[in-house]
Amino acid sequence: MDEKWMKLAIEMAKSTLGQTSPNPAVGAVVVKDGRAVGMGAHLKSGEGHAEVNALKQAGDEAEGATIYVTLEPCSHYGKTPPCADLIIEKGLKRVVIASVDSNPLVSGNGIRKLEDAGIEVTTAVLKEEALQLNEFFFHHMKSKKPFVTLKAAMTLDGKIATESGDSKWITSTEAREDVHFDRHLHDAILVGSNTVKADDPALTTRLPNGGISPVRIILDTQLSIDSSAKVLTDGAAPTWVICGKGASQERESQFTQADHVRVLRMEKESIEIPELLSVLGDEKILSVYVEGGSKVHGAFLDQKLFDRLILYMAPKIIGNASAKSVFNGTGVEVMNEAPGLIFEEVKLLGRDLKLLARLEERG
Amino acid sequence: MDEKWMKLAIEMAKSTLGQTSPNPAVGAVVVKDGRAVGMGAHLKSGEGHAEVNALKQAGDEAEGATIYVTLEPCSHYGKTPPCADLIIEKGLKRVVIASVDSNPLVSGNGIRKLEDAGIEVTTAVLKEEALQLNEFFFHHMKSKKPFVTLKAAMTLDGKIATESGDSKWITSTEAREDVHFDRHLHDAILVGSNTVKADDPALTTRLPNGGISPVRIILDTQLSIDSSAKVLTDGAAPTWVICGKGASQERESQFTQADHVRVLRMEKESIEIPELLSVLGDEKILSVYVEGGSKVHGAFLDQKLFDRLILYMAPKIIGNASAKSVFNGTGVEVMNEAPGLIFEEVKLLGRDLKLLARLEERG
Repeated sequence: MDEKWMKLAIEMAKSTLGQTSPNPAVGAVVVKDGRAVGMGAHLKSGEGHAEVNALKQAGDEAEGATIYVTLEPCSHYGKTPPCADLIIEKGLKRVVIASVDSNPLVSGNGIRKLEDAGIEVTTAVLKEEALQLNEFFFHHMKSKKPFVTLKAAMTLDGKIATESGDSKWITSTEAREDVHFDRHLHDAILVGSNTVKADDPALTTRLPNGGISPVRIILDTQLSIDSSAKVLTDGAAPTWVICGKGASQERESQFTQADHVRVLRMEKESIEIPELLSVLGDEKILSVYVEGGSKVHGAFLDQKLFDRLILYMAPKIIGNASAKSVFNGTGVEVMNEAPGLIFEEVKLLGRDLKLLARLEERG
Repeated sequence: MDEKWMKLAIEMAKSTLGQTSPNPAVGAVVVKDGRAVGMGAHLKSGEGHAEVNALKQAGDEAEGATIYVTLEPCSHYGKTPPCADLIIEKGLKRVVIASVDSNPLVSGNGIRKLEDAGIEVTTAVLKEEALQLNEFFFHHMKSKKPFVTLKAAMTLDGKIATESGDSKWITSTEAREDVHFDRHLHDAILVGSNTVKADDPALTTRLPNGGISPVRIILDTQLSIDSSAKVLTDGAAPTWVICGKGASQERESQFTQADHVRVLRMEKESIEIPELLSVLGDEKILSVYVEGGSKVHGAFLDQKLFDRLILYMAPKIIGNASAKSVFNGTGVEVMNEAPGLIFEEVKLLGRDLKLLARLEERG
């Protein structure tokens, strides 16, 4: 029965993905005499943890009950008091945990505290699912850098536009809606200045029932995008423009007149991806959704600085080698130097295929 | 129970695909009192039909039995006497048929003959499966042209070689073995002269337990390939070199010194795909497996003169827009002119993906 209740806790946590960052998504269920007496999830950074919400609902029933929680309860004072203390105070008999918190302030300490108080603790129930659920969180905790997803929509022959430049539309509405959901799930979206110049995109999350827009990151070494660009003027979500050391101070002042815009200056004249990822990691960006264009994708690819690739592939053919290819970096000289990936998910979305591939080992 | 026995007959027929052309693959099962008393398939053009083989095995048990056959029994004298007559003569009580023969010499006549003799006839049992099974045959019967499959192996970014030209290997051994099985299934394999010049391929079927090699068709307008090319000298399978009207007679004589080589001269200076397909259809080539290169694929694509596309996609990225693209024809000017396809099959083969897409409507 442990797995049944943990599965529910994981489903609750999963439903909050995209809304808790930089905190992980966590779910909790309080069970007494075989029936649920409290359920809760962490809903937003700074607000109550999953255990707090579930125990509040359980009220006096919590005494002698079991709590299922997808992540080890915290043992330190953060924005809220430690959940381990609350569990002890409420008199729970048993705690079942899916994954141990990799935050060094928590890791193992929550469990120890509970056991010291005489509470029975069971761990690693549906552990893999729980780790997968908070992949961005664990990745960032370990590497201090964001989890990087490269995303592109292309034809069967690897093209993103005809030779004349037409690209509307490659994929179906189903695939485009899936993209908006992924924008909701990620902390940041990233594009190059050419994409802003060519399309003046909003880069916001537009789903039928709303959604959270990611921080919009624009790589623009010389701060060359038009100051009337949507991302600089619409205030719809934060915009961070990344530039080289020597970019014009005047342009920076222009850009940052809008409250939602920041300019982040790199240490070199050019934007180096490793430095960029360190800066974003320090800024608590746990995940970046890279939408291209092909030069930006090429730069991440050449350095193998990505974790997974999501390709939407339309059942269409452009059929001309000179049409714009999906990735344009330096590339590899010989076949056996090509970055190896593993197909992890393949599914039909409307007429299109969604392919999710993961780098075998990150460089 | 009809479907159970027909399923067996279809499986038997399926196992002979590639070895019966230009005849269809056909299976038959004779059933009496609920048990199989005879099974047979058509094994080779010119040899006994499926019904003949199954009835031979049934012997005297055929009297009063039911025969399940995947295609309407023939009613005319071809290379063998009519199967409908044999069924009547052997005293069968009932005939169950999956698909009606679209050969005008047979269509409906076999059934009529059987019914006139007082035999109960049931049709359309697993009809769709039976039509699918002999797709090449029915296509050729209807259009007088071969069924055309375009096949390519490419990276995730639609490339077939690095910028420096290296292409070994894109796909895994599993995918390459699948290709050899498809060569076995098709009547002909087709490549352009550039492929012969660059790789000097054998274009034969090389499977662990043998297999039938297709007719090797080389598009070579000027008969420009080297006369020492494997396809011209190895005698491993028939080779048909297609050339323009004005190609050198001397080269033709050189090429055709080998018994297995024919030169087919087109009516114009250049090779036009519609004419080529008519000629191949007249030559009883029911199916063509087009292996490229990218210019040849481009020509078939531009004119929408293909029926399906098989793409093997390796989880590798070349990452350079100048690397060789999978298709190189004139292509389309705008997105909504791109030929629309439908994904029909997607499966993992080793590390690679096999995508089978079909043209929505053939141009």
